[in-house]
Amino acid sequence: MRTHYCTDVTEKNIGEAVTVAGWVNSRRDHGGIIFIDLRDRGGIVQLVCDPQDSKEALEIAETVRDEFVLVAQGKVRARGEGLENPNLITGKIEIVVEKLVIENRSKPMPFDLGDEKVNEEIRLRNRFLELRTPKAFNIFKLRSKATIQVRNTLDELGFIDVETPILTKSTPEGARDYLVPSRVHPGEFYALPQSPQLFKQLLMVAGFDKYFQIAKCFRDEDLRADRQPEFTQIDVEMSFCNQEDVIKVAERLIYDVFTACGKEVPSTFPRIRYSEAMEKYGSDKPDLRFDMPMVDVIDIFANSTNEIFSEIAKDKKKNRIKALRCPNGDNIFSKRQMKSFEDYVRKFGAKGLGYFQMKEDGLKGPLTKFFSEADLEEIVKATQLEVGDVVFFGAGDKKTVWDYMGRFRLFLADQMQIIPEDKYEFVWVVDFPMFEVEDGRTKALHHPFTMPKSLDNIEDLEEIESVAYDIVLNGTELGGGSIRIHKEEIQEKVFELMGISKEEANEKFGFLLEALRYGAPSHGGFAMGLDRMVMLLAGTDSIRDVIAFPKTQKAQCLMTQAPSAVDNEQLKELSLRIRQPQA
Amino acid sequence: MRTHYCTDVTEKNIGEAVTVAGWVNSRRDHGGIIFIDLRDRGGIVQLVCDPQDSKEALEIAETVRDEFVLVAQGKVRARGEGLENPNLITGKIEIVVEKLVIENRSKPMPFDLGDEKVNEEIRLRNRFLELRTPKAFNIFKLRSKATIQVRNTLDELGFIDVETPILTKSTPEGARDYLVPSRVHPGEFYALPQSPQLFKQLLMVAGFDKYFQIAKCFRDEDLRADRQPEFTQIDVEMSFCNQEDVIKVAERLIYDVFTACGKEVPSTFPRIRYSEAMEKYGSDKPDLRFDMPMVDVIDIFANSTNEIFSEIAKDKKKNRIKALRCPNGDNIFSKRQMKSFEDYVRKFGAKGLGYFQMKEDGLKGPLTKFFSEADLEEIVKATQLEVGDVVFFGAGDKKTVWDYMGRFRLFLADQMQIIPEDKYEFVWVVDFPMFEVEDGRTKALHHPFTMPKSLDNIEDLEEIESVAYDIVLNGTELGGGSIRIHKEEIQEKVFELMGISKEEANEKFGFLLEALRYGAPSHGGFAMGLDRMVMLLAGTDSIRDVIAFPKTQKAQCLMTQAPSAVDNEQLKELSLRIRQPQA
Repeated sequence: MRTHYCTDVTEKNIGEAVTVAGWVNSRRDHGGIIFIDLRDRGGIVQLVCDPQDSKEALEIAETVRDEFVLVAQGKVRARGEGLENPNLITGKIEIVVEKLVIENRSKPMPFDLGDEKVNEEIRLRNRFLELRTPKAFNIFKLRSKATIQVRNTLDELGFIDVETPILTKSTPEGARDYLVPSRVHPGEFYALPQSPQLFKQLLMVAGFDKYFQIAKCFRDEDLRADRQPEFTQIDVEMSFCNQEDVIKVAERLIYDVFTACGKEVPSTFPRIRYSEAMEKYGSDKPDLRFDMPMVDVIDIFANSTNEIFSEIAKDKKKNRIKALRCPNGDNIFSKRQMKSFEDYVRKFGAKGLGYFQMKEDGLKGPLTKFFSEADLEEIVKATQLEVGDVVFFGAGDKKTVWDYMGRFRLFLADQMQIIPEDKYEFVWVVDFPMFEVEDGRTKALHHPFTMPKSLDNIEDLEEIESVAYDIVLNGTELGGGSIRIHKEEIQEKVFELMGISKEEANEKFGFLLEALRYGAPSHGGFAMGLDRMVMLLAGTDSIRDVIAFPKTQKAQCLMTQAPSAVDNEQLKELSLRIRQPQA
Repeated sequence: MRTHYCTDVTEKNIGEAVTVAGWVNSRRDHGGIIFIDLRDRGGIVQLVCDPQDSKEALEIAETVRDEFVLVAQGKVRARGEGLENPNLITGKIEIVVEKLVIENRSKPMPFDLGDEKVNEEIRLRNRFLELRTPKAFNIFKLRSKATIQVRNTLDELGFIDVETPILTKSTPEGARDYLVPSRVHPGEFYALPQSPQLFKQLLMVAGFDKYFQIAKCFRDEDLRADRQPEFTQIDVEMSFCNQEDVIKVAERLIYDVFTACGKEVPSTFPRIRYSEAMEKYGSDKPDLRFDMPMVDVIDIFANSTNEIFSEIAKDKKKNRIKALRCPNGDNIFSKRQMKSFEDYVRKFGAKGLGYFQMKEDGLKGPLTKFFSEADLEEIVKATQLEVGDVVFFGAGDKKTVWDYMGRFRLFLADQMQIIPEDKYEFVWVVDFPMFEVEDGRTKALHHPFTMPKSLDNIEDLEEIESVAYDIVLNGTELGGGSIRIHKEEIQEKVFELMGISKEEANEKFGFLLEALRYGAPSHGGFAMGLDRMVMLLAGTDSIRDVIAFPKTQKAQCLMTQAPSAVDNEQLKELSLRIRQPQA
């Protein structure tokens, strides 16, 4: 129907006859001549309906309203002098309409499409209208471009796109599964996959060698702002490989995708050991767009006459005392602000937050009295303090200190506005622990199919490292992976260390254990969150912006009203009954 | 780890050091030298372990069994004269092993991997082994290639890949939905989509203009051999278009995909009206690899003295009498066979199956006595009979005659072995009826969002045509689509004609009706079954061959044992109870 998209009509088309189609973005009447900004997915072009050119077109133009659908035929001409609009690609031309057709009418919009402050409920209920802006469209264009690049890069590297089932059995990610009742097998359920983890490992056992999929995954969790019940992941697995091989594929993939989307990124990324990331940044997803590392000062604080500090310093394995230098902080923050920081860290388990100010004549602050001159000098040296700086201290159990000091580091940087917006800082976090012991229960930090570096020494399970790696971008975990266990005996040992009985392992993963007995090759891979990647590429801060029909925090689709009640007949067919809430 | 895939090692590598990795396909001991056929996803290469080259490698080789995983390092050399294997790509060379590593062991296979006659249950239970053949791998390589081509072609044509939700509301395809109970909203359910139909229409209302998706769809139906509870469809929608525009995109897509997969197909396909397809081939998915059309002989039979025929011939609108010429049938089939054909058509509602034989001296057969000489001559002329042919007749209600005569046409052609195997005959079936009236109920033949050609004359609903089209390949429906209704008033009228109340329409599709009020553009599209397309490309006759982890006819995954029972705790969280079967 159309000959051009609106924004494809430019100076080079002057004098040509064109047909465009789209929505009325706005309409203005100037002395009997009607100007219409016509909008399609790319942007806007100006239509002119002048009775001198077409009386019929003008008459029709008089009846159009915002968001009517038009097809307009006419000649392209240069705008008059001084009438150009430098904000539009098409700002130097206009289309003199010869024929105008109203393809469809529109009621007045329920909200102003351009207004992002409109109540989210109204926007989500009318998502088909909210998406009707070039800004929204451009995000999905970017998403489409990114996914196609993912596929082409992996195809070029010899990976095969294989679809794994959506109706399947519980997967071992540990979150809650969405269940699907079976009609044919009363009382039985499928589970929607939390990831294709086991299937991709089985494809390696099948000898597929290099697999990928852009896979829908599902988790029935209480949603945080940046989570959705269904999400999309780039899923990759390969055989006969080591960590280096996998990282190379992931780096190539990220490089290609970001480059295709017009972002400059390096072709390889630095690496940091998990333990170093925790000690320096208090997080396994450090934001390295700024430095501000934490410094260990437990040895200095051991000499302190403050009993709390010296007590904590007694157990260096269990505890930490960390210093965080805030450059020029004494000049940036008021005393009251610095006090308020303590409230911030208390939310994350801190007992308090000590600090020193670096003045012309040395460290000042109420805590200095507990330290010798020499020790105070040591602190200045260790944290490289300069006059005007402030240094904060966190002390206590190491996991707690890492956590709140890591958060505080981000909080401070944000307050100081030192985090560059347009920078992409990637880092591989490597050498993750295999296990995490919490309340006496041993869990796999990644998942139980991750290859441990060694099981020779199992005295302290938390000391065992695994061949697992995460890719972190600007403090966000973009994805991660591992080399997997391909030997039955190692897999069994790992289950045993986690306290999973043979029966339980067999019931849950029997088919994987069985597969390992029939010539499983060494293999490994990774998964990356596509939604999150697109979010970072698009520079938006809500995952809902990059999902066409997102759900609310209560997992509802306000547009379709899903979930909803169903007929009793349907329940009967599924051999189900609704459990009435207890009074 | 490897330097080459097995089949990448050829004559040009002679003298080079290479490393390959894979599975032991077979092992032979010839006078103290061990030959191993090593297999990876591409195929086989021969390893030679000779004590003169490496005593260690030989010792290891002595311990390997079928399906052990090996990494072998060695030099490539030409095979000795007379020892070449012309059946292998690598048949001119072998690798003299210098270092051999057993990466993993294998129990003996539970079945012979190459044997396709093995019980399907055993094969599906061990799907990860069944897939371990280059033959299986090649199907998935083809599938991957086809899907990537789909994406690249549509991307090139300006279509945007958009993901629509899996957890959604019932869609209107009319089959049974799979339901997903909501934990957060007790007693409410999501439905898995039968297609993204409504979402893609909403994306058009959103102005996305050109959308595509390779989408997972779900139907909880009793499975036939060629159906799976979840399947994959290529889903396309575009705005400001007519049927011609959509067909052009589909033809380009098919051409590109088939060409990429090494198949020769034309770039445009013939079209046939729905009514012509039914009258000539008794099917809306005619197999045109052979012709054998049915011929209308109701006017001739009207003169017959047989009361059954003349009675049927009285209502030409309701009934049909069809002749099917079977070339040379009198010489191919025995009288007994021809009798047995009657049993075949009876299964599909035929009351009988008359036939004439064309002998040197004219038509013969028990029914000839009911016809005049002149009418018999008319029959010969109408069906272009030659000596040795047989002509079969079907008479009765038109839908029944179309159905059984259409099936019989296929059956006969199969018996006669006149269907060419390696031919791709595409045809567009166009001008579908909008409605189908069955037992007094009016249903949409495609779906209720299909644009009718006109609603001016609604006397006979079955006479109303729609702008709907199916693409048929070799008698299989590959896909189809339509121009959709973009005007609220037409959509409401269609619901009304189907006897759907405003309340029901609003409850089910309220959001679509609402969307049509806000400037919906004209739009249309199509969907094609990817699984079926790959099946036809791969030349296999089971949909399970092209799905990595398929389900049985009882919708079970024998490998993972899905579906399965779940904890009572999980049911409680979902506010569900299992309904115990009635005694």
